[in-house]
Amino acid sequence: MEWPDRARFVSGFRRRGAYVLSGAPRAGEPVIDRSAFEIAPWAIVERSLRLDRLATSESVFALSNGHIGLRGNLDEGEPHREPGSYLNGFFEALPLPYAEPGYGYPEEGQTLLNVTNGKLVRLLVDDEPFDVRYGTLERHKRVLDLRDGVLRRDVMWTSPAGQAVRVRSTRLVSFVQRAIAAVCYEVEAIGAPARIVVQSSVVANEPTIVHGEDDPRSAAALRGALVCEYHTARDSEVAMGHRARVSGLRMAAALDHVIDGPEGTVSSAESETDLARVTVSTELAPGRTLRVVKLLAYGWSAERSMPALRDQVDAALSAARRTGWDGLLAAQRAYLDTVWEHADVEIDGDPELQQAMRFAIFQIVQAAARAENRAIPAKGLTGRGYDGHTFWDMDTYTLPVLTYTTPDAARDALRWRHSTLPLARARAAQLHLRGACFPWRTIRGEECSGYWPAGTAAFHVNADIADAVRRYVSATGDTAFERDVGVEMLVETARLWASLGHHDAEGGFRIDGVTGPDEYTALCDNNTFTNLMAARNLRSAASAAERHPERAAALGVDGEEIAKWREAAGAIVVPFDTELGVTAQCDGFTRFRRWRFEDTPPDAYPLLLHFPYYLLYSSQVVKQADLVLALFLCGEEMTLEQKRRDFEHYEAITVRDSTLSASIQGVVAAEVGHLELAYEYFRETALVDLRDIAGNTADGLHLAALSGAWLVAVAGFGGMRDQGDVLAFAPRLVAPMTRLAFHLLMRGRCIRVDITPHDARYELRSGDPIELEHHGERFTLEHDASRLMPCPVREQVPTVAPPAGREPFRRGAGADAHRRVGRG
Amino acid sequence: MEWPDRARFVSGFRRRGAYVLSGAPRAGEPVIDRSAFEIAPWAIVERSLRLDRLATSESVFALSNGHIGLRGNLDEGEPHREPGSYLNGFFEALPLPYAEPGYGYPEEGQTLLNVTNGKLVRLLVDDEPFDVRYGTLERHKRVLDLRDGVLRRDVMWTSPAGQAVRVRSTRLVSFVQRAIAAVCYEVEAIGAPARIVVQSSVVANEPTIVHGEDDPRSAAALRGALVCEYHTARDSEVAMGHRARVSGLRMAAALDHVIDGPEGTVSSAESETDLARVTVSTELAPGRTLRVVKLLAYGWSAERSMPALRDQVDAALSAARRTGWDGLLAAQRAYLDTVWEHADVEIDGDPELQQAMRFAIFQIVQAAARAENRAIPAKGLTGRGYDGHTFWDMDTYTLPVLTYTTPDAARDALRWRHSTLPLARARAAQLHLRGACFPWRTIRGEECSGYWPAGTAAFHVNADIADAVRRYVSATGDTAFERDVGVEMLVETARLWASLGHHDAEGGFRIDGVTGPDEYTALCDNNTFTNLMAARNLRSAASAAERHPERAAALGVDGEEIAKWREAAGAIVVPFDTELGVTAQCDGFTRFRRWRFEDTPPDAYPLLLHFPYYLLYSSQVVKQADLVLALFLCGEEMTLEQKRRDFEHYEAITVRDSTLSASIQGVVAAEVGHLELAYEYFRETALVDLRDIAGNTADGLHLAALSGAWLVAVAGFGGMRDQGDVLAFAPRLVAPMTRLAFHLLMRGRCIRVDITPHDARYELRSGDPIELEHHGERFTLEHDASRLMPCPVREQVPTVAPPAGREPFRRGAGADAHRRVGRG
Repeated sequence: MEWPDRARFVSGFRRRGAYVLSGAPRAGEPVIDRSAFEIAPWAIVERSLRLDRLATSESVFALSNGHIGLRGNLDEGEPHREPGSYLNGFFEALPLPYAEPGYGYPEEGQTLLNVTNGKLVRLLVDDEPFDVRYGTLERHKRVLDLRDGVLRRDVMWTSPAGQAVRVRSTRLVSFVQRAIAAVCYEVEAIGAPARIVVQSSVVANEPTIVHGEDDPRSAAALRGALVCEYHTARDSEVAMGHRARVSGLRMAAALDHVIDGPEGTVSSAESETDLARVTVSTELAPGRTLRVVKLLAYGWSAERSMPALRDQVDAALSAARRTGWDGLLAAQRAYLDTVWEHADVEIDGDPELQQAMRFAIFQIVQAAARAENRAIPAKGLTGRGYDGHTFWDMDTYTLPVLTYTTPDAARDALRWRHSTLPLARARAAQLHLRGACFPWRTIRGEECSGYWPAGTAAFHVNADIADAVRRYVSATGDTAFERDVGVEMLVETARLWASLGHHDAEGGFRIDGVTGPDEYTALCDNNTFTNLMAARNLRSAASAAERHPERAAALGVDGEEIAKWREAAGAIVVPFDTELGVTAQCDGFTRFRRWRFEDTPPDAYPLLLHFPYYLLYSSQVVKQADLVLALFLCGEEMTLEQKRRDFEHYEAITVRDSTLSASIQGVVAAEVGHLELAYEYFRETALVDLRDIAGNTADGLHLAALSGAWLVAVAGFGGMRDQGDVLAFAPRLVAPMTRLAFHLLMRGRCIRVDITPHDARYELRSGDPIELEHHGERFTLEHDASRLMPCPVREQVPTVAPPAGREPFRRGAGADAHRRVGRG
Repeated sequence: MEWPDRARFVSGFRRRGAYVLSGAPRAGEPVIDRSAFEIAPWAIVERSLRLDRLATSESVFALSNGHIGLRGNLDEGEPHREPGSYLNGFFEALPLPYAEPGYGYPEEGQTLLNVTNGKLVRLLVDDEPFDVRYGTLERHKRVLDLRDGVLRRDVMWTSPAGQAVRVRSTRLVSFVQRAIAAVCYEVEAIGAPARIVVQSSVVANEPTIVHGEDDPRSAAALRGALVCEYHTARDSEVAMGHRARVSGLRMAAALDHVIDGPEGTVSSAESETDLARVTVSTELAPGRTLRVVKLLAYGWSAERSMPALRDQVDAALSAARRTGWDGLLAAQRAYLDTVWEHADVEIDGDPELQQAMRFAIFQIVQAAARAENRAIPAKGLTGRGYDGHTFWDMDTYTLPVLTYTTPDAARDALRWRHSTLPLARARAAQLHLRGACFPWRTIRGEECSGYWPAGTAAFHVNADIADAVRRYVSATGDTAFERDVGVEMLVETARLWASLGHHDAEGGFRIDGVTGPDEYTALCDNNTFTNLMAARNLRSAASAAERHPERAAALGVDGEEIAKWREAAGAIVVPFDTELGVTAQCDGFTRFRRWRFEDTPPDAYPLLLHFPYYLLYSSQVVKQADLVLALFLCGEEMTLEQKRRDFEHYEAITVRDSTLSASIQGVVAAEVGHLELAYEYFRETALVDLRDIAGNTADGLHLAALSGAWLVAVAGFGGMRDQGDVLAFAPRLVAPMTRLAFHLLMRGRCIRVDITPHDARYELRSGDPIELEHHGERFTLEHDASRLMPCPVREQVPTVAPPAGREPFRRGAGADAHRRVGRG
């Protein structure tokens, strides 16, 4: 293997969908400030506007309820990097091209569409459009309030002609009224009277960034993807309906306004194809304010007619009008109060991490709260990265958080998976497999992966989904769900594994030619993670079928099939290198070429942009936790000593070119005693977006990495495991953290765990007494009687480190020093 | 693994470039006859015109000298399936699309262009165009004469109006004057006087079939690919020059005519964009003939200007005019007489096989004779299948034939490979490898493979090229070539292997993550064929470098590097299944899932059109000889017993979905004693095109399979091996063959081997005495003293067979029963 000159990386290959930085301010643009977000316990505060970081802030300040997503674009629309208004599941279809087609390759892709933008509020001050790039931005503040669930903006601006105004806005996407978003927009004249015009618009087919912009066909296909089917304007109300040109999905948006201004304030409404707006015109004396509350309703459907959709959004708008702005605000707060009561994680000793932790939980809730039988995309509804697709990390990273904090959202996401079972069955049949084969990436359920070695071959997604079902049922005791939904999913995925694997001459159950989570190794035999997860899938299906014999019988499951599942699970092959004493990630892995990390320059990461797949695939270099993820999720039968050996081996070759890695490395590092390292990974995963560590927060938030922050807190430092008959903890803390507390919902109970460096206090906030385990010791937690348990003295272990040049994100390091791209 | 209903295969996925049968006659078209080609020792004779097999006959009757290729289209152009006029290396560039791009993926493809068609001769009889689809075709005969090197046609036709004519034409593509083709066209009026018009044309941008026709962009790119730069017409001469729109290559064609008709015959010439023609008009009394000899010159260049090209073709035409039609004919015959003297293979006992064998040799000569530092495409210049690309089979299948029969052509082809070394070095650097990495498929030298697991990862192409160099040098003793060309190619490919592989903990030299010849297994570790060929490559480089120390030093080779090559070669890993006692095709192969051949319906072949890659890759199913090819090419260190065990294991799982397989299975079957099977494979590979066994001869001939026929004859039944210090033979014959004789050129000698069931006679036709080996016994062959050596009595071995449903092509079986698609 030859090692490249640094120079070669300057013009690195650009991956489809990868974000290319273009944020450097253009000549003439004011760079207003360069400080980062301010640290606060319950808010993300921006006190200066950096145009070169606008794209990042658009993602960080995105609001969503899982159904509607609005990027944190400025009210007036521009400047922007990507205007974003999304409806969960509303996509356009695109052809997937291949230089050499193959059997079973998906022919059509799906990409999340930027729908009609209803959050626009444009402002004319005297004769000047309010635009932060012109005139003087005297003061700027934006606050994402994690308890109120709103984005607030407070700006003081002097126009190029010298007229000063103060603009305040508050934006929300309602958790309670799923179809509703709203903006309260206030303009105040400062110093002198001002002629003010506010235009509240909804526009379609805004120019947007095309992911995969190197493919001119995709760009062409998305240009004008929305076809206008109606538009109306009357009094303070406007509305528009559109159809996606190829996918045929239909959507509608309707606006209404409550206007509060001085006498002489007038308004008018107008609409045409792709544009509808209400214009408010007034003159403000100094110190006087014009207030426009904009209510915005969205709806979409693949089935319903446009008249039906139009009725639907008008009705939602009518309900919102009745609730009113203050009512929406109050309901939003009340909803979040309940969320935080069950989901908050408290961290003492690192305020930045505390903020990041709550930001993470807030974003998970935003992504999932009202998704209601739709997918949770990898970026939530905060950007169009990865085309808005959902991957396995929903099931493996995000659903655990939801399962133990907002279980109804976990159930809804699994119901979405279940709703795609007919497609998954058809896919399995196409691949000549039994049961169901869920897609590697999708919006609606069809496989959309255009590179099968890291798509279709990553069959583990099926076991990940099955494990999410098992986990949800185990944590909630929701037997109705298990009977109606769970059994079928477990059975169909178990059938997939039974047909994918086979018993070899020695009786071992092998699964050959698959790809595990580590995408720097592909099409390998007996991937340990896949095999162990498949074995669990088979066992879970067997148990569930036995618990629900009628349902199982209806699915054609008989005793013989169950016995075969158990037999395969019991005989599963786990490759082990007896010479090194470590578990192999897959057959032969520990014999592969060692990667020359010491010769790999920093700008050669992520490696997949600079090295061919074959070189990565045949080397001992790991993109993201794979064997280490198996240590976490399937570690119940391994000794701590083995886990430590394995972790130390793989830690040294894992480059974390995916943001899915740090959290899992952190969880296992904590378990095997590398607490300082675990803490660093905790920060790396939690701060992924607030510090733009991957360098592509602009494309949308990293929901799995944010979920991973919760995993490091609860499963790493809390040591929580839910794979045996009782919920187990093994708390351990490391400086600078002085306290870590979290809540878990478990079969109707709310449990609080409060950890200090020396002990842990368990408290039953609600529900019946429950048996728990603390560092292997079982005890029963009674109501109104908290238990203080001592934490064992920490065992000393030798230091381990990731590969040279791939150290974790460090306290105080600038984001620029840690740009990486990629996910799992 | 689930097994499909037969019904599912009806609407099978269509592979890019795969030929889809559309030959069934349309309503209203006369199906003139249904008999096959007539068997003759030195000719391919067609006595009836089958419109539904027109495409096949266009390939079978193609003429070429390796520089110009003319498909066997009817003189009058239509009906046709694909009009084809090709110039070796003249291509258009096309973008290669990817749903998910990756580092190092080639972005531009190359596709052979149908250039301006200069072989057209249209005929008007009274007022009716001569078209076999109308009127009555009273008699039809076409003969491809393998000794004269011409295609003759003799047709009797009655027009719809009742006028009968006899049309005779003879077409040649000159072996002696490389830029020249010619047609002698004669029309005779029968029964009544006839007004006759002959239009001899050259036309550009004919509608043609686009390979990968499911990609509308390719079709669009090739429509109007030729841009006219000049056209002229004067007296009996016309000419046109064109440029390929994207690749920028330039070509020119010029025609001149010698017209011999009754008094009153007149002619005129005209030209316009994309059309130039000479029109000859006369009236023929019954029994009188009009004769038009058309001389056609082609030239192309990437460098030279259009005026220079124009001069070049005009000059070539001038030389051809001087030679004249009779002179061209005589020179053609003389050229082929010399070829047959060194290259003929005689077979008694199976006239069909004799014919097919000579057809094969003739086509190899046609493809290579005057290619002169250009590639030999997989289909020669007989069709646009595989986009006109050259693959590894040139080096491994075709060059052995040329090396021992027309070594200058082998040398020229290797010089072409050598001329692409700068591109191969750049490709290796792009892949972070040392040395040179030759393309998997290409026209000019750039990698054009759009699916890297079966393209870039098939690194064995480099060892195949190196072995062709070694073989050529060994067979010819051409030390000048070795010094000037060979050393550099061997050194650069050896460097590739040294950087691709690595020594593992136990010291073995592993090559992981590559794809061998069997494309139903990919990205595997330690492919036995690849490893053994790489080891030979390393050793060949070491020896060549030692023989040419100055040249090696100039390439930076030192003793240490040579030592490393030998060390790696000596430590090469060969996976062996000790339990089964068979060599594994790659690590883990013998543990893969067994394929359920008994449940695979006949229409599920070729499997790659009906099963996903992952299922093929993880199963014990072999597309084409891989481990068996290693037994042939690298068998010198294996015992016969081991080869037999290995052959029997792999024969039972090899489906021959590639036409590259039968010949190699045949060679090894003969070696290990399965002579009847070897004979069946001999026929299968030799008859591949005359019987259209693969079902896609329409796209062009299968040059590697035809070359394989020679391999079965010489290396299979002749048992020839040239890997030790003397040329070794182990002749064995099987009924119905009663005699097999062939010639070999070896270091300036011509050796004839004449085999009967009981003995073999060796004869030195020219050159110095030489030591040979016959079934392990060494002897010296003297001039004028042939040696008769007895063949050992045949050892009885148990019968083996390929998988159920994949029996070899049998005597007398119709082609329809044996349709397959695919190559290697």
